[in-house]
Amino acid sequence: MTKRNITILGAGLVGSLTAILLKQRGYEVSIFERRPDARKTDIYAGRSINLAMSTRGWHALEKAGLKDAMNAIAIPMYGREIHAIDGNIVFQPYGKNNEAIYSVSRGELNKFLIDEAEKLGVQINFESKCTYTDIASNTITIEDLEGTKNIKVDLLIGSDGAFSSLRNAYAFADKTDYQHFYIGHGYKELHIPAAENNGYLMKKEALHIWPRKNYMLIALPNMDGSFTLTLFFPYEGEPSFKSLLTDEEIIAFFKEQFDDAITLMPNYLNDYKTNPTSSLVTVKINKWTHLDKSLLIGDAAHAIVPFYGQGMNAGFEDATTLANIIDKYKGENWTSILDEYAASRIKNGYAVAQLALNNFIEMRDLVADPAFIERKKIEKELGLRYPNEYLSVYEMVSFSHTPYAVALATTEAQHELYQTIINNTTNFWEQLNDDNYIAQLSIWVKQYSVKANNILANA
Amino acid sequence: MTKRNITILGAGLVGSLTAILLKQRGYEVSIFERRPDARKTDIYAGRSINLAMSTRGWHALEKAGLKDAMNAIAIPMYGREIHAIDGNIVFQPYGKNNEAIYSVSRGELNKFLIDEAEKLGVQINFESKCTYTDIASNTITIEDLEGTKNIKVDLLIGSDGAFSSLRNAYAFADKTDYQHFYIGHGYKELHIPAAENNGYLMKKEALHIWPRKNYMLIALPNMDGSFTLTLFFPYEGEPSFKSLLTDEEIIAFFKEQFDDAITLMPNYLNDYKTNPTSSLVTVKINKWTHLDKSLLIGDAAHAIVPFYGQGMNAGFEDATTLANIIDKYKGENWTSILDEYAASRIKNGYAVAQLALNNFIEMRDLVADPAFIERKKIEKELGLRYPNEYLSVYEMVSFSHTPYAVALATTEAQHELYQTIINNTTNFWEQLNDDNYIAQLSIWVKQYSVKANNILANA
Repeated sequence: MTKRNITILGAGLVGSLTAILLKQRGYEVSIFERRPDARKTDIYAGRSINLAMSTRGWHALEKAGLKDAMNAIAIPMYGREIHAIDGNIVFQPYGKNNEAIYSVSRGELNKFLIDEAEKLGVQINFESKCTYTDIASNTITIEDLEGTKNIKVDLLIGSDGAFSSLRNAYAFADKTDYQHFYIGHGYKELHIPAAENNGYLMKKEALHIWPRKNYMLIALPNMDGSFTLTLFFPYEGEPSFKSLLTDEEIIAFFKEQFDDAITLMPNYLNDYKTNPTSSLVTVKINKWTHLDKSLLIGDAAHAIVPFYGQGMNAGFEDATTLANIIDKYKGENWTSILDEYAASRIKNGYAVAQLALNNFIEMRDLVADPAFIERKKIEKELGLRYPNEYLSVYEMVSFSHTPYAVALATTEAQHELYQTIINNTTNFWEQLNDDNYIAQLSIWVKQYSVKANNILANA
Repeated sequence: MTKRNITILGAGLVGSLTAILLKQRGYEVSIFERRPDARKTDIYAGRSINLAMSTRGWHALEKAGLKDAMNAIAIPMYGREIHAIDGNIVFQPYGKNNEAIYSVSRGELNKFLIDEAEKLGVQINFESKCTYTDIASNTITIEDLEGTKNIKVDLLIGSDGAFSSLRNAYAFADKTDYQHFYIGHGYKELHIPAAENNGYLMKKEALHIWPRKNYMLIALPNMDGSFTLTLFFPYEGEPSFKSLLTDEEIIAFFKEQFDDAITLMPNYLNDYKTNPTSSLVTVKINKWTHLDKSLLIGDAAHAIVPFYGQGMNAGFEDATTLANIIDKYKGENWTSILDEYAASRIKNGYAVAQLALNNFIEMRDLVADPAFIERKKIEKELGLRYPNEYLSVYEMVSFSHTPYAVALATTEAQHELYQTIINNTTNFWEQLNDDNYIAQLSIWVKQYSVKANNILANA
């Protein structure tokens, strides 16, 4: 049996990593990428240059043998640094065991993966745009600097992002359900420069949030000492991108809402006025594969909003799952490989999209809510006391390999447990000294644990 | 001010009628239609050749001065003729005042409208497919027998159906929400021939239904004495299009479920095996217009499932609404015309899509349920006793111009009223003789009426 030739659309993060994992399994792999080579041109200027890498992302890099190299350019963030409107700052750790998510430059990670793929012998064609895909004949139409050509391919992988050409072909296949929708907020990048000698003007190892209920500003650290900030802000209403028109209005707004930040941002007014405003789309489709011919992966299959920091992590998990299934079938019976990939990933793609939408409300509003902060503390205590029974949804998503669909389905059970606790508790922290209370608490956690195990068993 | 030139994509029912209404208002109108001329080729063979025309459809034909001509080829259906599995037949009238919906041949109606449009001077280009639309420059790419050409148009109307080229361009405009999804059922057409001398083998003036819970067969009368039947059937499961494989299985299934029908269908086995199985899509998009340049209408804007018989009626109401708004603005200020059209129609497009999905359950399952039949009778009585306060949702949709969004929103209020009645009533029909009960009933209906009026006022 001859090994299949693999053609990948898109040399972004997920396309490059997938190419590496498949090349390492002995396949011939070539990529068509519509943009110029990221190593020669800055293709990310002013747009989403930071990522939060967590367990699923690291696992994929480790599987590809690239973890150590990336570790050197990733900054751990151990929690959220919450900036209140009065300048007060509170730190909320992400995990109970000092776990971190990692700030990584999207551009650097992409260049690194492209380098590694080329080193392994993956052939990457830049400035080669796929304008049309015929899924029945598995023919792609590529526009490059020399013109337009049709190429019949063997196995096609669409990792060509939120507006994927292959997905567009899938979307209009009979009986395929397809949806994309935008939230009412856009985003704009701002910048805090480095201190002298590449020092940091704010705490380095944290994800900074200025939660303002209906909107928020966040900041992630860069290796050079600077921070990249992102304002998530409504398109319309009061205040919004539409309502802030004059320099005076912009300055007054930032001074009122983000006073501690703008003292560190000499160019915020100019950045606000000149950086693009980008929209935030969610894509859902119930067809990720076609026979043994093609498949979708990454944003092409499940573009999501960025609020759980899971876009790249979910795409990398797609790639490791695909590699595992190929290994399981020893690279034979590709109909089964693609069917199993779809069965495993589609439900998790839907779930991570919903988790990401839900987390926007947590980030922009709840993190500043005393009741929410108390809940996070109590959850941490539950996790420490009952490590085998209780893992918070945030920990499941960011620090475990629990399927996203299970994490989403467990949300409600955790909410019920918490309600049971607070409805039957006067002062949690005092009552922890009461053996009778502890006995009752253990029963509640056990009841929750049964539900959680049922969810996992039925996943 | 010179009048705008109007270009329409699609010479289907809604495109042709829209062309007539606009030509009657003095505009130059041309149509590009991808299919051959329906008057010369049978383009509807084996697919959805019957429509149920109700009040909104008739109103549009009347507005175009075409009602009398169509009346001659429309067959009134005064209610549902329910065929039970044991052969028992029950008639359920649609309205309390002998109202009817009308069985109309899609093909005949389309040919008639194309004729009328051409008579008025509308230029129709057949076998001219729009393959691409650039909404910014308002340029369409047309492929016809002579080749491919780009045409810059003035005002573009997309009435090019469920897979509209213009809508596809809208769907990928920034911040546009788009969705299409299929139900798990497909449909297949079958046929009961005419009796001798164009007589009818079943009751002529009814919509026949064989409700079987998860699926159903329906029949609509044709002018020539025949009936067109449609089997709405799951793609998978037991029974389904997938599960019935051999002649023996098909025959056994029809004999068990539709015994009274197959005695009238000499060719059902062959029809079942050779007629295509078609899928049922719902399309939702929140952008129906672009500046003063283009708009969507009919299925292009809101493809829906056929179970309320409202697809064509909703499209015709789009057209009359557009004509009314044009008249209101005297054909000037097209940005306002298109904005008002979108504001008026999008919410109703979403609502009719939902109403149609809900009605599938009513048709295939509830019409055979004694509790549902009793509810229908009580609703009829309420409508007769309180004609100003109570109009059933079915009557709103089929026999009034109540906006679909209002009809949908009123559903819940009617459900609450009915629950209140049955929870507080021993025997409705006996208690109607009790003055105290009537006084109480009037209070309940009045309370409902206040809610219904609030829904209307907030629409």
